[in-house]
Amino acid sequence: MMVLVTYDVATSDRVGQRRLQKVAKTCQNFGQRVQNSVFECDVSMEQFVRLKGELTDLIEPSTDSLRFYFLGNNWKHRVEHIGAKPVTPIDDPLIL
Amino acid sequence: MMVLVTYDVATSDRVGQRRLQKVAKTCQNFGQRVQNSVFECDVSMEQFVRLKGELTDLIEPSTDSLRFYFLGNNWKHRVEHIGAKPVTPIDDPLIL
Repeated sequence: MMVLVTYDVATSDRVGQRRLQKVAKTCQNFGQRVQNSVFECDVSMEQFVRLKGELTDLIEPSTDSLRFYFLGNNWKHRVEHIGAKPVTPIDDPLIL
Repeated sequence: MMVLVTYDVATSDRVGQRRLQKVAKTCQNFGQRVQNSVFECDVSMEQFVRLKGELTDLIEPSTDSLRFYFLGNNWKHRVEHIGAKPVTPIDDPLIL
């Protein structure tokens, strides 16, 4: 299933900046970055539970936030991109 | 229909910072901010076309990007929030 992960991390101090890097790195392990703090993660329910657990442990809940949007199966027809860094959907053939 | 708007705007210069403010302000006219650069906009098709047009005119396509996710009708059961600033869905009664 495709889950869109969006997050805000307070980066006013060094600790927050490191948190931001770890959150991004964790999302990278499960999916594809489509914007600075937006990832598309095509995961099983088990993988999603693990991703959510890891992210929840990383953030500071009083200042940071995570949002998960379950886009369903037909998601590719539900997203439109305008501007820089258009994204190649994960399971489209990468023609080299 | 509920449209999730996410954006990245390059803010390395003053012009970019102003662009970012205008993009946010435009999204504010059509929906609710749920994270720094994430808005939920419950709009008609006609309103969406206007929103998209205004945002497309504002961004610098070589450095900025816009993503629109069409969440469909059953969207409230498709989103999960963890951490700071939980969001009151737009049409939930605001009990004062």
